[in-house]
Amino acid sequence: MQDLTPPHLGAQALRELAERFGERFTTSPAVRERHGQDESWHAPAPPDAVVYPQTHDEVVAIVRICAAQRMPIIAYGVGTSLEGHIAALHGGVCIDMSRMNRVLAVHAEDMDARVEAGVTRKQLNAHLKDTGLFFPVDPGADATIGGMAATRASGTTAVRYGTMRENVLGLTVVLADGRTIHTGGRARKSATGYDLTRLFVGSEGTLGVITEVAVRLHGVPQAVSAAVCAFPSLRAAVDTVITTIQSGIPVARIELLDEVQVRGVNNYSKTDYAEAPTLFFEFHGTAAGVAEQARLVGELARDEGGADFRWATLPEERSRLWQARHDAYYGGLSLRPGARGYVTDVCVPISRLAECVVATKRDIEQSGLIAPIVGHVGDGNFHLVILVDPSDHGEVARAAALNDQVVRRALAMGGSCSGEHGVGYGKLEFLEPEHGEALALMRTLKAALDPLNLMNPGKLVLAEAPR
Amino acid sequence: MQDLTPPHLGAQALRELAERFGERFTTSPAVRERHGQDESWHAPAPPDAVVYPQTHDEVVAIVRICAAQRMPIIAYGVGTSLEGHIAALHGGVCIDMSRMNRVLAVHAEDMDARVEAGVTRKQLNAHLKDTGLFFPVDPGADATIGGMAATRASGTTAVRYGTMRENVLGLTVVLADGRTIHTGGRARKSATGYDLTRLFVGSEGTLGVITEVAVRLHGVPQAVSAAVCAFPSLRAAVDTVITTIQSGIPVARIELLDEVQVRGVNNYSKTDYAEAPTLFFEFHGTAAGVAEQARLVGELARDEGGADFRWATLPEERSRLWQARHDAYYGGLSLRPGARGYVTDVCVPISRLAECVVATKRDIEQSGLIAPIVGHVGDGNFHLVILVDPSDHGEVARAAALNDQVVRRALAMGGSCSGEHGVGYGKLEFLEPEHGEALALMRTLKAALDPLNLMNPGKLVLAEAPR
Repeated sequence: MQDLTPPHLGAQALRELAERFGERFTTSPAVRERHGQDESWHAPAPPDAVVYPQTHDEVVAIVRICAAQRMPIIAYGVGTSLEGHIAALHGGVCIDMSRMNRVLAVHAEDMDARVEAGVTRKQLNAHLKDTGLFFPVDPGADATIGGMAATRASGTTAVRYGTMRENVLGLTVVLADGRTIHTGGRARKSATGYDLTRLFVGSEGTLGVITEVAVRLHGVPQAVSAAVCAFPSLRAAVDTVITTIQSGIPVARIELLDEVQVRGVNNYSKTDYAEAPTLFFEFHGTAAGVAEQARLVGELARDEGGADFRWATLPEERSRLWQARHDAYYGGLSLRPGARGYVTDVCVPISRLAECVVATKRDIEQSGLIAPIVGHVGDGNFHLVILVDPSDHGEVARAAALNDQVVRRALAMGGSCSGEHGVGYGKLEFLEPEHGEALALMRTLKAALDPLNLMNPGKLVLAEAPR
Repeated sequence: MQDLTPPHLGAQALRELAERFGERFTTSPAVRERHGQDESWHAPAPPDAVVYPQTHDEVVAIVRICAAQRMPIIAYGVGTSLEGHIAALHGGVCIDMSRMNRVLAVHAEDMDARVEAGVTRKQLNAHLKDTGLFFPVDPGADATIGGMAATRASGTTAVRYGTMRENVLGLTVVLADGRTIHTGGRARKSATGYDLTRLFVGSEGTLGVITEVAVRLHGVPQAVSAAVCAFPSLRAAVDTVITTIQSGIPVARIELLDEVQVRGVNNYSKTDYAEAPTLFFEFHGTAAGVAEQARLVGELARDEGGADFRWATLPEERSRLWQARHDAYYGGLSLRPGARGYVTDVCVPISRLAECVVATKRDIEQSGLIAPIVGHVGDGNFHLVILVDPSDHGEVARAAALNDQVVRRALAMGGSCSGEHGVGYGKLEFLEPEHGEALALMRTLKAALDPLNLMNPGKLVLAEAPR
């Protein structure tokens, strides 16, 4: 287990934390291992210790102790990130936010809520059950709201409700020097000052530790319907997506699975979808509105040779459908037992989506690897799960080459190297190609807010170790 | 005319600019006066010179020349801001962006466009005429897209389409040291790096000069209808707004005018609306959707004692209605010929809106001043135009006291000291009460990006003069 922290400093911080937090502080190898490993294929790196604060003030205390001893700080939600975001590359203290999981306020009349960072999205939605409101952002995993804010999470419903960028109204953040700031406000808009909320949303823990999040809520739609539709080709499916989006039809979800992914889903989730390029839809609105949306999209799908919609009308049918979609990763893995998933995602302008997906499919075929395609195509975002035997270095290298090829094509099309998984340390190398000189400015901001580079060092904008 | 710039430095910069820009550089007193004065009551401050770049590279050259000589830089669109944003408080060079007014690209299939910063919103919409798309953000004035981005503009349609925060996809910015960055991208979402676009949106020219803006476009709705409805009381009107928003009805516009403002509008725009608290509505959607929205809102209004809707069905009737709304400022002024408008705006959570508006109305009555209330109430945002005789110092002081009272109440209700007019130098004093320690972080960002404090000094987050 690598530890680059100067030991005399780190040891002092660990002693102070142990004294203050008692049994809520641990250096147990098993706990550290678990906290240094996300759900990706990236090499894990355990922190030196894990601490479990219960209050904002305890986070302040942890950050102050660590900062004084130049100990790296990594905030941890539930560890479902996919680009090595939580790996303790330079050692340090992992702040596990799971015990800060109180819903602090629900303002139904303003359609907002304030939660501690460790509240998960499903927990929040269970809490909202009787309010007629819900929190829509759904990255699949039952991630914490704090982690979702830190990674600018999105997922299946972003096409209709936006990502965390649009759904975070304000934050409480502990800065690298232990100061606390509150960003945003409860008014629906403000023209006063720099948009600090958006600066911290997506900052992947590199600028501060998020302890509270105010989120926008949405009304539970009067009517919901979902459907599955198979297409004769990948292009036909994607072209249906493009025309749907360009027509301004407010679909709530529009998800692509290629035939390989559908096979995996059928395997894992015991479904019997036709093994063809497929779209999963969901429509939200009034009863009349949902019917109108479904009719319009049905026409567009038929124009592209799509089969009849297979409807999931009952809530339990819909749950089954979306659970199958959310388990697509495991479905993919089931196609090659024992393999690990080398996961990547890119996002391109809608106009380039068909070209990008079709070319990516060709890349996969040429690579000789199995790699299901699945994605939030209404946003131009799609994923590959490249199935690799981690002990086969040649295969891992081919997967890396495929990833590189897919990412660089997306960038060449004016897209992003990640629509939602983020950068962590897995995609550091693509930041300069994507952002150019703007990356230098991001580093200026990082240096201004975290001059010692203690906040999740080695991630997002900066490969370097702490100073 | 005050000039705090060290003369030996400023003079050198002006000589270099004069040489390079020829007749596109001027120190004419009339031109300088015009460029130091926005549409507000705030004391103007003319710059030392005005220069008219035609290209991004010319802006880079101007910034480099000014930075080398420590000359303040103020970017200027059309001068319609309302809190002294463009006043050259410390002298300097005004960069008039009006000749950078090319629409660079329209990507109809991706529903976005890229424009030079000097393109105005009406110019862009005229350009989009045959595309089936439009740019919705509408602050009233025909402001430049660059100025609207810099001030995080919103206006009548923000309740449906969002503010500039939601509608700017990317920017080209010249930084204080002359470097160029491109922020954002053409994909609908990205999880890679700090959100620099949102950092510059609303930065009021204090972090860099915006030269290009990529904006989101929206489909022209199939059907549009507009209506006016009078209410028995201010509270009844505002309560209708609150229930409409809470019901999730996607109104495109929902504007409040109090009875004083309606009298002003009737005066100025020769309309004959009932002189009562009034809402102006607009509905966008499919024909069926618009009819459904109008019916639902009509029911909510009737529940509050609202009169029958007075419909503006034909496009020219709608234009007349919204022109009257946009001319509300002049309508207000017409109530007291010779007066100037001391304009302010605040924004509060929807749940506090009725209480806030009613209490503000009482403040106005107690002040003895005439001050029409008008606002984008669907966002919780409303404005006062306090009519003052600028030569009457006692009256100006009473207006300032009224403004102070209104702003501090909004802040106490969890609101913002400005929903859309921004800070400029007019609302500097309210930033600390609104943002607390976060203001210190904003100043850290300002210092990191503009260490010499040359970009629009004395505005938004920092009262100080350049170093």
